[in-house]
Amino acid sequence: MTETFTIRTFSNDKTLVKERRNHIVRCSTRVFTKKGYDRTNMRELAKGCEMSTGTLYHYFGSKEEILYLILDNATSQQAISLEDHADEFAAISPTIALVNLIKKFCDWHDNNQDTTLFAYQETKNLPDNARQKIFESERRILTVFEKVLTRGIEAGEFDIDDPKLIAHDIVVLGHAWAIRRWYLRKHWTFETYLRKQTDAILKLVTTDKNASNAKHAKKGAV
Amino acid sequence: MTETFTIRTFSNDKTLVKERRNHIVRCSTRVFTKKGYDRTNMRELAKGCEMSTGTLYHYFGSKEEILYLILDNATSQQAISLEDHADEFAAISPTIALVNLIKKFCDWHDNNQDTTLFAYQETKNLPDNARQKIFESERRILTVFEKVLTRGIEAGEFDIDDPKLIAHDIVVLGHAWAIRRWYLRKHWTFETYLRKQTDAILKLVTTDKNASNAKHAKKGAV
Repeated sequence: MTETFTIRTFSNDKTLVKERRNHIVRCSTRVFTKKGYDRTNMRELAKGCEMSTGTLYHYFGSKEEILYLILDNATSQQAISLEDHADEFAAISPTIALVNLIKKFCDWHDNNQDTTLFAYQETKNLPDNARQKIFESERRILTVFEKVLTRGIEAGEFDIDDPKLIAHDIVVLGHAWAIRRWYLRKHWTFETYLRKQTDAILKLVTTDKNASNAKHAKKGAV
Repeated sequence: MTETFTIRTFSNDKTLVKERRNHIVRCSTRVFTKKGYDRTNMRELAKGCEMSTGTLYHYFGSKEEILYLILDNATSQQAISLEDHADEFAAISPTIALVNLIKKFCDWHDNNQDTTLFAYQETKNLPDNARQKIFESERRILTVFEKVLTRGIEAGEFDIDDPKLIAHDIVVLGHAWAIRRWYLRKHWTFETYLRKQTDAILKLVTTDKNASNAKHAKKGAV
C-alpha cells in the first residue's frame, strides 16, 4: 500500500489553515500558470500571495504540496458538485439528468480553463501517492457519468454497450474546451460548443424512439 | 507577421545534419520524458545521445530548438502520412476512408504515446512563433478528417451539420489513448478502444440507411 500524501503545517487552527491555504491555492495557480511550475520558487509564490516566505512555509511544507492542493481541490470540487447534482436528478429521466450533468461539468471547465490546462501539464510533477489521490477524484467524476448512462440503459432511454467508455468520452470532450482553446475558440463560442457536443452525445446514446425525448430534455437543461 | 522559428547549425552538410538531428530527437525524447523538459540540460541531453556537448551544440543552438524539432517532427509526420493516406482513399467510399484514417491516426498515437503526452505537457515552453508552426501541422491533421467528413455528406453517406467539430472530436479521442493511459489502459486494450471509438464515430456521422454500409466498411479497414 502506498503511503498517504500529507500537507505540512505548523498551525493548529484548522479554520485559519483552511482559509489561508485557499488564498494560497488561488494566488499560486495564477503565478504557476503564468511562469510554469518548474520555473517558480517558494519566494515568488509568497510574493504572489502577498505574504512572507516564512508565512507561506507555515501553511505548506513545499511547492509540491501547493501543487497537490491546487489539483486536489480542483478535482474533488468537481467530483462533489457532480455527485450532489446527480443526487438531485436521481428521480428524473436519465436523458434530462445527463444533459444537465454535461452542462455542469463543461461549465466548470469553462470557468476554470487555466486550472484544467495546468492539471494536464503539471500532474506529472506529483509523487505517485499524491497523483493516485487526484486520479481517485477523477474516477468519481467518471462514475457519475457512468451511473447516469447505466440508469438510462435500464430505463430503455439509452442504447449503448459500454457506458464506461462513453463516460470517458464525455469527460475528455469537456476537458478539450480548456485544453485545446487555441483551436476551439476560433470556431465556436462556449455555448455553441456545449450545445453541439451535447447533441453529439445524445445522438450517440439515445435509442431512435427516444430521440424526440432527448430534444425535449435539452430544453429542460438548467 | 511573426518571425520564423529557425534551428541553428554550424554544419553545411544537409544530409549529415538531418541524420544527426533525427538521432538527437529520438534520444532527447527519451531523456525529456524521463526527467521533464525544465529539469533537463544540454549536458544531460548530450549524454543521452552519446555525444559530447560540443557536438550537440553543432546541430542545435539550444534545448528549446530540440524541443521544437521533437514536436514539429511528430505533428508534421502525422500530417504528411494522413494526407498521403487520404489521397489513396480519395476515390473510395468516404465511410471506408474515414475508418481507415481513424485507424492510421490512432495507430500513430498508440506507437508514440510518450511523444503525444510530452506534446500536451511541454508545447507551452515554445516561443509563440514556434508554437504556431506546430499548430499549423495540427490544423492539417484536422483538415484531413474534415475533408473526408464533408465528402461523406456530399455523397449522402454522412448526416452531420458540423464536420469541423466532429473532426476535432476524432483527434481528441485519438490523443486521449496516449494522454489518459493511467485510466484507459485498465479497461480496454488498444484494439478494443479503437474498435469502440470507431463504432461511436460511425454512429455519430452515418445516416440510418448507411449504418449497414458502415459495418461493412469497418471490415474493410486495412
